[in-house]
Amino acid sequence: MKKIVTIGGGTGSFTVLSGLKNIPDITLTALVSMADDGGSTGVLRDELGVLPAGDVRQCLVALSEHSDIVRGLMNYRFSEGTLKGHNFGNIFLAALEKVTGDFGEGVEVASEILKVNGRVVPITNNKAELCISLSGGQTHCGENTIQDTDLQTHKLERLFYKGDVSLNPHAKEAILQADYIILGPGNYYCSLLPNLIVEGFKDAVKDARAKLILPVNLTNKLNHTTGWKVSDYVQDIEKYLDRKIDIILVNNDFPSTEQIERYKTEEGEGVLVEDDLEDDRIIRDSMLSHVIHEKRDADIIPATRGFIRHDSGKLANILKVIIEK
Amino acid sequence: MKKIVTIGGGTGSFTVLSGLKNIPDITLTALVSMADDGGSTGVLRDELGVLPAGDVRQCLVALSEHSDIVRGLMNYRFSEGTLKGHNFGNIFLAALEKVTGDFGEGVEVASEILKVNGRVVPITNNKAELCISLSGGQTHCGENTIQDTDLQTHKLERLFYKGDVSLNPHAKEAILQADYIILGPGNYYCSLLPNLIVEGFKDAVKDARAKLILPVNLTNKLNHTTGWKVSDYVQDIEKYLDRKIDIILVNNDFPSTEQIERYKTEEGEGVLVEDDLEDDRIIRDSMLSHVIHEKRDADIIPATRGFIRHDSGKLANILKVIIEK
Repeated sequence: MKKIVTIGGGTGSFTVLSGLKNIPDITLTALVSMADDGGSTGVLRDELGVLPAGDVRQCLVALSEHSDIVRGLMNYRFSEGTLKGHNFGNIFLAALEKVTGDFGEGVEVASEILKVNGRVVPITNNKAELCISLSGGQTHCGENTIQDTDLQTHKLERLFYKGDVSLNPHAKEAILQADYIILGPGNYYCSLLPNLIVEGFKDAVKDARAKLILPVNLTNKLNHTTGWKVSDYVQDIEKYLDRKIDIILVNNDFPSTEQIERYKTEEGEGVLVEDDLEDDRIIRDSMLSHVIHEKRDADIIPATRGFIRHDSGKLANILKVIIEK
Repeated sequence: MKKIVTIGGGTGSFTVLSGLKNIPDITLTALVSMADDGGSTGVLRDELGVLPAGDVRQCLVALSEHSDIVRGLMNYRFSEGTLKGHNFGNIFLAALEKVTGDFGEGVEVASEILKVNGRVVPITNNKAELCISLSGGQTHCGENTIQDTDLQTHKLERLFYKGDVSLNPHAKEAILQADYIILGPGNYYCSLLPNLIVEGFKDAVKDARAKLILPVNLTNKLNHTTGWKVSDYVQDIEKYLDRKIDIILVNNDFPSTEQIERYKTEEGEGVLVEDDLEDDRIIRDSMLSHVIHEKRDADIIPATRGFIRHDSGKLANILKVIIEK
């Protein structure tokens, strides 16, 4: 029984987990960023003082063996009245945190109710406010603010948390016991790195015997990673980890012109991550979904958020070959 | 396998079902009033156009075989922010109605998620606005309004629905197949009778082979049934049913002075239902809970709402003897 740990936020982890859950004889643990402070999650965080549920919710849905109706319920967003804009799954997790008195315990109960095949573990139990400082001297806090901040004109100097944010002991245990740790894909600065900078994470990964797998992002985020190539991602993440990546997954399939055009309107030029690295650790294959997803579907199925994204089935097949070796 | 149908609103049905669910070899179907329009239920009804979930929620909780945490979750009421005053279980059922497009189907899915041992069936699928007309000529609509209306100074002439409110076919089926139908206990005009006046209900009960059991209320509601005796309840309900009750359950135990005093502050004199009927159909026994419940607990455990109430265990034991005969 191979132990697989995924690390990320909501959307990317949803894609990876949705595919992996069909592989037999593995146990899955999803470690999830707690830096989210936007949308329905942000409102509940502000008003009720609960931990952010959005990314956890997506991982729970990915691993739930309940019916599609129940999975749809978790992603249902109210469109009227005082509940307008609130996502049912976020309310569910907020209420469970209140009833159990602990977010982690609430997630455990949610997992039981949702018949989750695997474990979803918050990367930290602390309130995690993400901050950046830029070369111009500016400091910004809040993941939702950072999403829209240019990190390239004035170069990002430091990504950090306000206050102490330390690794959840359950997350540490999962890292130390893992056979494979999959880093991403997903929003690099706002979903993936917020896990890596949690105090204690780097040390746990250095002590871990697990092989580290990096499915390199397919696209760059405007003014965050515009123009980045495969080598940039690998070098940058190794700097944060202080450890080498063992397996690098690089897509070698091309999106359609329609996919690229639609993406460019949001993310500008330099959106596709160029494959520039010659390295034995790279596995190249088609990992791309050719389905055109509508951005407006985002509220219903989180996996359809981007126009160019990994195909969860293709990704899972590649990972299966690695895991079963 | 005896088929038992309960009929009522939330609190009384919760008491009956909580006890009955421990009896082996029976199937339980709870038929639930849809007239509720107060509190969190009323807000969701107004804002989202959903059917009232409060009473259904209490029946689901009573029959849920999930952990106490999950049952607590269903009754959890938010105390801060935009969700303030909303009950989680009501939000859950509202979201399920939206996702499935049908309240009854939503209740089915909720039953699956909550591992409900039995069935909870809305008495009608129609929007049910309860109305009264009084001997003074006044008409009032809305269950929440009727709760606080004096039905005795000017005598109640008619209890009715605005518009067509007809029996849910699933409820009809349950009635026709039942071995026993338990009417109440509970708020007489606002929880029990709203089921009986649904179009088609009376005819279904007349066609049913089931024995009708009436656990007579322990207490009268101020200005609704103040001063009523056992004979009043039996005569009145038989008028609505146009059929005789088969078994009348009358409590012969006395509440403590403390229980009576506390109750009187809310419900005035004439609060205890006097046992005045000589009738072969009556079974007399102790059916009373001697636990002093705090009214402020109402939000957490619905069963603790009243100060004088049936003991679900005692009631179930009496019903068990009847059913197994």
